[in-house]
Amino acid sequence: MPHSRIAIYPGSFDPITYGHLDIIKRSLRIFEHVIVAVARNSQKNALFGIDERIALIRSVLKDEQRVSVDTFSGLLIDYVASKNAHVVVRGLRAISDFEYEFQIAQMNNSISHDVETLFMMTSVQYGYLSSSIVREVCSLGGNVDSFVPAEVKAAMQKKYGLTGSQSADSV
Amino acid sequence: MPHSRIAIYPGSFDPITYGHLDIIKRSLRIFEHVIVAVARNSQKNALFGIDERIALIRSVLKDEQRVSVDTFSGLLIDYVASKNAHVVVRGLRAISDFEYEFQIAQMNNSISHDVETLFMMTSVQYGYLSSSIVREVCSLGGNVDSFVPAEVKAAMQKKYGLTGSQSADSV
Amino acid sequence: MPHSRIAIYPGSFDPITYGHLDIIKRSLRIFEHVIVAVARNSQKNALFGIDERIALIRSVLKDEQRVSVDTFSGLLIDYVASKNAHVVVRGLRAISDFEYEFQIAQMNNSISHDVETLFMMTSVQYGYLSSSIVREVCSLGGNVDSFVPAEVKAAMQKKYGLTGSQSADSV
Amino acid sequence: MPHSRIAIYPGSFDPITYGHLDIIKRSLRIFEHVIVAVARNSQKNALFGIDERIALIRSVLKDEQRVSVDTFSGLLIDYVASKNAHVVVRGLRAISDFEYEFQIAQMNNSISHDVETLFMMTSVQYGYLSSSIVREVCSLGGNVDSFVPAEVKAAMQKKYGLTGSQSADSV
Amino acid sequence: MPHSRIAIYPGSFDPITYGHLDIIKRSLRIFEHVIVAVARNSQKNALFGIDERIALIRSVLKDEQRVSVDTFSGLLIDYVASKNAHVVVRGLRAISDFEYEFQIAQMNNSISHDVETLFMMTSVQYGYLSSSIVREVCSLGGNVDSFVPAEVKAAMQKKYGLTGSQSADSV
Amino acid sequence: MPHSRIAIYPGSFDPITYGHLDIIKRSLRIFEHVIVAVARNSQKNALFGIDERIALIRSVLKDEQRVSVDTFSGLLIDYVASKNAHVVVRGLRAISDFEYEFQIAQMNNSISHDVETLFMMTSVQYGYLSSSIVREVCSLGGNVDSFVPAEVKAAMQKKYGLTGSQSADSV
Repeated sequence: MPHSRIAIYPGSFDPITYGHLDIIKRSLRIFEHVIVAVARNSQKNALFGIDERIALIRSVLKDEQRVSVDTFSGLLIDYVASKNAHVVVRGLRAISDFEYEFQIAQMNNSISHDVETLFMMTSVQYGYLSSSIVREVCSLGGNVDSFVPAEVKAAMQKKYGLTGSQSADSV
Repeated sequence: MPHSRIAIYPGSFDPITYGHLDIIKRSLRIFEHVIVAVARNSQKNALFGIDERIALIRSVLKDEQRVSVDTFSGLLIDYVASKNAHVVVRGLRAISDFEYEFQIAQMNNSISHDVETLFMMTSVQYGYLSSSIVREVCSLGGNVDSFVPAEVKAAMQKKYGLTGSQSADSV
Repeated sequence: MPHSRIAIYPGSFDPITYGHLDIIKRSLRIFEHVIVAVARNSQKNALFGIDERIALIRSVLKDEQRVSVDTFSGLLIDYVASKNAHVVVRGLRAISDFEYEFQIAQMNNSISHDVETLFMMTSVQYGYLSSSIVREVCSLGGNVDSFVPAEVKAAMQKKYGLTGSQSADSV
Repeated sequence: MPHSRIAIYPGSFDPITYGHLDIIKRSLRIFEHVIVAVARNSQKNALFGIDERIALIRSVLKDEQRVSVDTFSGLLIDYVASKNAHVVVRGLRAISDFEYEFQIAQMNNSISHDVETLFMMTSVQYGYLSSSIVREVCSLGGNVDSFVPAEVKAAMQKKYGLTGSQSADSV
Repeated sequence: MPHSRIAIYPGSFDPITYGHLDIIKRSLRIFEHVIVAVARNSQKNALFGIDERIALIRSVLKDEQRVSVDTFSGLLIDYVASKNAHVVVRGLRAISDFEYEFQIAQMNNSISHDVETLFMMTSVQYGYLSSSIVREVCSLGGNVDSFVPAEVKAAMQKKYGLTGSQSADSV
Repeated sequence: MPHSRIAIYPGSFDPITYGHLDIIKRSLRIFEHVIVAVARNSQKNALFGIDERIALIRSVLKDEQRVSVDTFSGLLIDYVASKNAHVVVRGLRAISDFEYEFQIAQMNNSISHDVETLFMMTSVQYGYLSSSIVREVCSLGGNVDSFVPAEVKAAMQKKYGLTGSQSADSV
């Protein structure tokens, strides 16, 4: 019997973007529950702390009953096993993504055959989006309305010492 | 509520290889039922007819209760809808695969949002396998024991006018 | 003094798509005149004849005063020189495009330094579009309304023996 | 009416190489004026300061009447608009370049439709050149005569505490 | 003890180009003998017959004492073994090359561990060259002086019904 | 006369993995002697010091009479020349590798024609391996038995303050 009721969607989410939300919503059409899992590792140069990222994700997804937000450290496959889950979901954007994801998926598979990674192509309109590009555009005073939800935009502007009206002017 | 009990695994399967079987078995750990769907379109230069391909797949998978084998023509998304399914599974091998699959997935998504394509990375040991390379190796007298099941090998050798002993000699 | 008033946009245009039209319109914001040049070479498996393709392009672009439609055979750089032009425009979609275009651009540059090829990234919403995929979708009865203008759709359906109502039903 | 008399060529130019000069000279055959725009952002680990880079570019291009050198901070598209320009020129070397440039071009296009990015393939003989590789070769005592003009080489050797004769010996 | 005195350089060589000759000459600096092996398989749409290709290669390399020219059918690894050789040399141009060559090398390695494939990056000035592009340029009346030796050019022009003077005019 | 008795295998080897050992052993079937050359440059964020890396490589390869271990600083081509060698061996894993290696090989070739870089495709089972991924897996408590020899594993666990039994538990 298959055991795929739960999918884990891991990432750094610094911050969550419409690209991530697209993957989460499409995953909910396939799985009964999605756990958004914020990785504690490799936080160098992070804009938001782990707790801030989790709060933003929870705020944005507060109406989705079938999503929970969690954090993990250590190997992803150990975390997946600890949740009695077997499916990891990842979005694929471009070739660079593909290679890195391929390497990680093969490595994970060599350690444990019990976890399967499923990839979704990012929707066309989010194909260029990444958290790091959103951070850069926002820090330079650009408009990020089409990249992140309003509460994420407000949190970013606060971090960068920008006011909403300044940002609106720069467009 | 999600509706992902059934996954469609489309392809030309000319013939089915251990790489395809790997994807099917991993899909069965996630979905309750997998439909292997042989495409009727673009059969130019095919080695096996549609009926032969279906017979080989059925023979190889005869012990898998949760797999069925079917054939389709027309648009894949129309076929998926006709089966009340919403998930298509595809294996990803290399960059070329990625780009083609990406293009097809984006095109399908632009036509219907009701079908989701999930990609799995092929297992390391099958990363170089393709039906066309298997056909070429077999036609040149090479040993294909590690690429296809015995009944597929026998069917290929018959098509190419080879006997099993000849092939064994060439290794 | 620069001499870039005219840009040549070469291709097979079998048929012209919204992706091509996007490149043409963006080129018109940079150059005073754009010549859409249909290549006579390598017409194997073409759906439309050269004259049909030209007629469709002219029909679709009939309101653009600064576009002309032409055909050429032989080397592209010879054709460009014959028009007293120095700029070729090409759309880039994906990695495969990039490599092929790179090879052709390098080859052209090794023959003549007088022609410069400028590349534009295709707009996000047309990143998956190609004439061959549009032909395939239409031939299988799919809806191509978002890929080609109405007159191109009508011409394709006539070629494939489809009526408009049939196609509409299949969506 | 098109408005493409001016092209902006942005970059970090740390330092300017023959690869950059090749793109600038080819751009001058198409546009009436080229603004070489040194980005003030993300200067981490820079060898030369912004003013030094500008001085080197001016020195190397002092005989080109139709080139000016400038610096900018903030979003590139805001800078382009502030110059009443609409065209950005970028050189494409390899796949990595392509993906990054594609992502940036799509992002810029999603913010403003008023700026068009045109790409040129780097000339074959400069396909492997990058400022970072030139810095590395020079710092290790290698000969960079075929990568950068003499004044740039002299400035690099001074930075690295090398004399011209030492470097010549190491070849 | 290593056994790498002989290298096999397989290909279709339809016709041999300066890119092939570059690989052969660089191989001769590493190996004592190089066998240029023309594949008999998959000759669809060939311009030159196997015997013509061999004659052209022999003519171009007649002064190289350490090169021999041969032909083979069947699996490459069987041919390599029949020559008591263990090394295959291949030129790598671009990403497409890389993937195809990777797939073939992995497949060969899965059949026999006794053959090692060594790859050389093509020299910068031949990075865009391929036999098929040379055929296309020549057939369209373009100058191929920088792509192939004089005797190969003459043979191509004869095949395409061109005279040397016509071709010279078209440049 | 060819002069390829010695091959240089350069890298950072932080630490040496089964992927590196695979390339070394396959090189020994072609060359009489292989020098494993640890680069002193760019050691940022290294786990092991140069001397530790050399000691680990020597320990792992102590039974290979035809391998020596060395260290170098400065340009690789200068080091290769200092050893009277002419061949550099590199493993190729994925597209990213390919591009970087291509760029370096072209750069080296532009400086000296006396050094030839030969590439081997990594064996299928090590296609996902890299020193950095091994370091990450080990630091997170994962099992690295299938990635590195026992003495390398022990040295890594000591660096990360792990005991063997802890690591075994985490699998």
